[in-house]
Amino acid sequence: MPIVAIEPRATSVEVEVGTALLDAIVAAGREIEASCGGEGTCGQCRVQVSNGAVEYVPRGYLDPSELEQGWVLACSSRVVEDIAVRMEDESERRAVAPAGDLGRGGAHSDSSEPLSVKRLLQVEEPSQENSFSDLERIERALADGAEPISLSCDLDTLRGLAAALRRGAHRVSVTLARAESGSAAELTRIEPGDTTSRSFGLAIDVGTTTCAAHLVDLVENRILATGAEYNQQSTRGLDIISRINYAKTPKRQAELRQLVLETLNSVIDELCRQSRVATDDIDHASIAGNTTMTHLLLGLDPEHIRLEPYTPTVNAPPLLRGYEVGLHLHRNALVTYAPGVGSYVGGDITAGLLQTALASEREEISLFLDVGTNGEIVVGNGEWLMACAASAGPAFEGRGVRCGMRADAGAIERVHVDPNSGRAEVSVIGGGGPKGICGSGVIDLLAELWSVGLIDSAGRFADSLGGELLRKDDGPGRNAAYIVVPAKASASGQDILFDERDIQSLLRTKAAVYGACSFMLKSIGLGFGAVKRVYVAGGFGRFLDLEKSITIGLLPDLPLESFVYLGNSSLAGAHAMLTRRAARMRVRELADRVTYLELNVSPAYMDEYTAALFLPHTDLEQFPSVKRTMKGTARE
Amino acid sequence: MPIVAIEPRATSVEVEVGTALLDAIVAAGREIEASCGGEGTCGQCRVQVSNGAVEYVPRGYLDPSELEQGWVLACSSRVVEDIAVRMEDESERRAVAPAGDLGRGGAHSDSSEPLSVKRLLQVEEPSQENSFSDLERIERALADGAEPISLSCDLDTLRGLAAALRRGAHRVSVTLARAESGSAAELTRIEPGDTTSRSFGLAIDVGTTTCAAHLVDLVENRILATGAEYNQQSTRGLDIISRINYAKTPKRQAELRQLVLETLNSVIDELCRQSRVATDDIDHASIAGNTTMTHLLLGLDPEHIRLEPYTPTVNAPPLLRGYEVGLHLHRNALVTYAPGVGSYVGGDITAGLLQTALASEREEISLFLDVGTNGEIVVGNGEWLMACAASAGPAFEGRGVRCGMRADAGAIERVHVDPNSGRAEVSVIGGGGPKGICGSGVIDLLAELWSVGLIDSAGRFADSLGGELLRKDDGPGRNAAYIVVPAKASASGQDILFDERDIQSLLRTKAAVYGACSFMLKSIGLGFGAVKRVYVAGGFGRFLDLEKSITIGLLPDLPLESFVYLGNSSLAGAHAMLTRRAARMRVRELADRVTYLELNVSPAYMDEYTAALFLPHTDLEQFPSVKRTMKGTARE
Repeated sequence: MPIVAIEPRATSVEVEVGTALLDAIVAAGREIEASCGGEGTCGQCRVQVSNGAVEYVPRGYLDPSELEQGWVLACSSRVVEDIAVRMEDESERRAVAPAGDLGRGGAHSDSSEPLSVKRLLQVEEPSQENSFSDLERIERALADGAEPISLSCDLDTLRGLAAALRRGAHRVSVTLARAESGSAAELTRIEPGDTTSRSFGLAIDVGTTTCAAHLVDLVENRILATGAEYNQQSTRGLDIISRINYAKTPKRQAELRQLVLETLNSVIDELCRQSRVATDDIDHASIAGNTTMTHLLLGLDPEHIRLEPYTPTVNAPPLLRGYEVGLHLHRNALVTYAPGVGSYVGGDITAGLLQTALASEREEISLFLDVGTNGEIVVGNGEWLMACAASAGPAFEGRGVRCGMRADAGAIERVHVDPNSGRAEVSVIGGGGPKGICGSGVIDLLAELWSVGLIDSAGRFADSLGGELLRKDDGPGRNAAYIVVPAKASASGQDILFDERDIQSLLRTKAAVYGACSFMLKSIGLGFGAVKRVYVAGGFGRFLDLEKSITIGLLPDLPLESFVYLGNSSLAGAHAMLTRRAARMRVRELADRVTYLELNVSPAYMDEYTAALFLPHTDLEQFPSVKRTMKGTARE
Repeated sequence: MPIVAIEPRATSVEVEVGTALLDAIVAAGREIEASCGGEGTCGQCRVQVSNGAVEYVPRGYLDPSELEQGWVLACSSRVVEDIAVRMEDESERRAVAPAGDLGRGGAHSDSSEPLSVKRLLQVEEPSQENSFSDLERIERALADGAEPISLSCDLDTLRGLAAALRRGAHRVSVTLARAESGSAAELTRIEPGDTTSRSFGLAIDVGTTTCAAHLVDLVENRILATGAEYNQQSTRGLDIISRINYAKTPKRQAELRQLVLETLNSVIDELCRQSRVATDDIDHASIAGNTTMTHLLLGLDPEHIRLEPYTPTVNAPPLLRGYEVGLHLHRNALVTYAPGVGSYVGGDITAGLLQTALASEREEISLFLDVGTNGEIVVGNGEWLMACAASAGPAFEGRGVRCGMRADAGAIERVHVDPNSGRAEVSVIGGGGPKGICGSGVIDLLAELWSVGLIDSAGRFADSLGGELLRKDDGPGRNAAYIVVPAKASASGQDILFDERDIQSLLRTKAAVYGACSFMLKSIGLGFGAVKRVYVAGGFGRFLDLEKSITIGLLPDLPLESFVYLGNSSLAGAHAMLTRRAARMRVRELADRVTYLELNVSPAYMDEYTAALFLPHTDLEQFPSVKRTMKGTARE
């Protein structure tokens, strides 16, 4: 088994091949920060590999220059051989973090400044000499000798003042909404005694298919738990447009609102249960979602998003409160949103951009692809930003595919198809019998089946495919299906299947994304050659295979080092906004800067889309490395 | 009948003796502003008497110098002889109004600036080129070419945006909360089409005994209707302390809150009915009340107001909303309060001070007396202000007196007792048979009965009183009662009575007020001689008789021209705050400036109180003019 040697304070540990480096370091008894729990979304577990190499999946937290120097995130690295790594201590880390770049990194790039802060106050007791009211004495304690400022508060908070002060012997914890845009200071909560160690926040990504959240300790600036569930609205339409079509009456809008609230509240309740946190101690929720999801969550009529000229009620919702929104939070909790750009480029995209350096580059042009149920693409640099949206469908999120599932335990995330037998060899998240296939597994499967010639460029099964690999007797309306895992090896005791409809669905999805990128670049007279970096966000599994994504024509055929896989950048961006003032300022600036390009009105986009409906593309010249493989040449 | 000649544009009219000058002017077909409906609370109906004289009751809207020049309020003047009056036109009026003095006058001293403003917007329609959200387009329409500012709004308002814009063909009326203390602009309402002519406000005085309100047209800056009702809480205690004692459980606090809400909502509903205004069109309520009433209305536990060291939860409640407070207003209506000074000097007093020049005088010392259920006294000038409170009781508001009633139609407001027969001659508000006696009637009655020797200085009936004037057979526990109006002449067919308990109650009330004034002045080494002006506010009838108030020892024995009767100055102050930004600023400054003096802890106050429990006082030297009358000398 490989040995991991850790500096400073030489420690070493022997681990199995494939062990996450983070686990190895923890096994060695060393302290390492990873506030996201090893999900690759906090950027804290940076280590430098000084000897040997690891299998690393880039997360967008490290500069190319840092990568060259061997820096990796321990959570996203697998140990495959003997290595030596160097951990940074707190002081070193600050020096290494790219100064002034808000686009990158997690909590380490500036200090924590949540929008909601809790303070312990020793309030003066009233006396004949100090005849100030309860509220005035709190204002004076806050001012601490300076000129007191007037606090605003709601009536329920006001009603609790007298009892809280007296129950706490005038030692109280007050929660204040930080004034960021000239608004007066607001008291949102008062509790007797010292509860300042208990202030929590939620970063929430409301996706069309999946809702995900981090529960964050705002005092320690640490992710306590992470969870996700399928959006219950999916039963009322898999994509945005069908969701809007469903929401045609106020009653149905209320129903859809209820469904997403149930989804989110179920995630929140579970996170709180795991972390032993009361939902009432959640003081702030930072939400990122596409514009339609935002409208449906807030009970806003989404109709005009669908109708020309595609007008949302709101792109940047104002500051709202827990009791208004209906989430399981403190009644007065602040609810903030990542601002959207327009009807089809929402706050999930601006939040995602926070996780990239795209909008900070001097001249280099980068591409940002968020492949969720809708595919959104941003192209630009520090000078200009352009965005568009392509209706992709939820295939890469494990929906709309026969045996699809989220990248949870039991999901097939890697597939290799044996060229001789045609049988699939799968690797399953968490090991054991597979339950279904997640996004990265589906991409692998498609790429492998095509590579070994079991499907053709149009996505049809080859005539050679048959026998025990193909199931044909599958009821009316269903066509032939490739057996990925036979019933006897699956967790459910049922065949895990992949059929031609699944393939067509995946082809449409990847064509929408690739076609949109291609169209955007052509619209400004550029091609993929001008793109220096591609940020890939989305609901794929944890480990996206770039080569196979290129093989199927989802991603452009660029050098592998151009790609940065961000994971759920919408959630990571919502987290940044939850804890960092600079991120809250930056995301508003980003939303203002992006110019939206409408695809619906463009026949040129339809041409690009149609051309991309093949594996990898009708124009093989766009995929030189794939073309070389097809010719039997070794890939470079 | 006397003739009233009116300049400019010579008009004349002949009216009966006793006609209000305001009615005479209206009868002459002339336009005159009196937005309070002739209640003496708006200060608008100023006219100059250039020939002859009127019977005038000062309202505190005119300077002594103006009074000398013959200026009067037409509503508070009665025609008794031929006169010539000069009306000011709009341009003249502005010149006459005392510049820069916020303490005085109604709507004429600065232009209307309500806290809530309505604007008609022509919002740009969305298009492929203008892809801004509904909220953004509203922000841009508001900015009118300048840099748009971010509007905040609540979720319900946000939900109405899309439909309002489209129903109104993008012509909408938006209601905005004016940002006065650095807070961001807030959209509180949006309606399709032009509704800018409909924006209403309420000025509310929440008294311990009586609740009164003006319904104000905020667009035309005009009082539409005025109304009052007894506070339904009175059944749970007549004064503040008994009300607080009752409110000892959260359930009872809720009950008291409900009672005052029912009272106020009944007044509001009636005002709206009279004026054909929907309660939903009320955008702002400006409330003045004593600290206990404020706590009970807001559902705040009043207990610590009663317990040493007498600490309210809040003196200056933050900006609240209609839905929080529970009044019949628009859900998002702004609810603001006149700030109080402390537990026993509340917002009703600071609002009342707005109606005086007391706090603006260079050196002259003035006294402000608010004789409601609690008696509050303020003394000071432009340099210093001191206040105290005396538990007076509701006798002068028509409560706690056997046949007492509010100064409504049917109330006896004037009494003359014939020295020979001992019979009372009464004048009744609105004429007809009397129903009861209001505050000014009670003062008259007490003074007259004492003057003719039917009661002694301790308030006991004289032995000479008897026969048909006295009723003795009045059940157990009740003592002898003077028959003010016999059953056959009263509206109810029952005797209108005045008994020794009533007298004791009145003596305690007037002793509390006079004793407090005396104590305050002595505490700073002054006597009544230092006082140049006395402002009298309170729930008396419309026409308080100063001489009789002095006779009973309620008011100090100062020259009559020193007194200014303000009427319900708390309501008038709330009205000023509703419509004028300067008044809102000023009232906060006043609350900050007043120093509170606690009477409860002072034995010296008890001495002053006890000495004042006689008619007019144990120390007759303090009442030289009364003393001269007693000796049979003609009063000067």
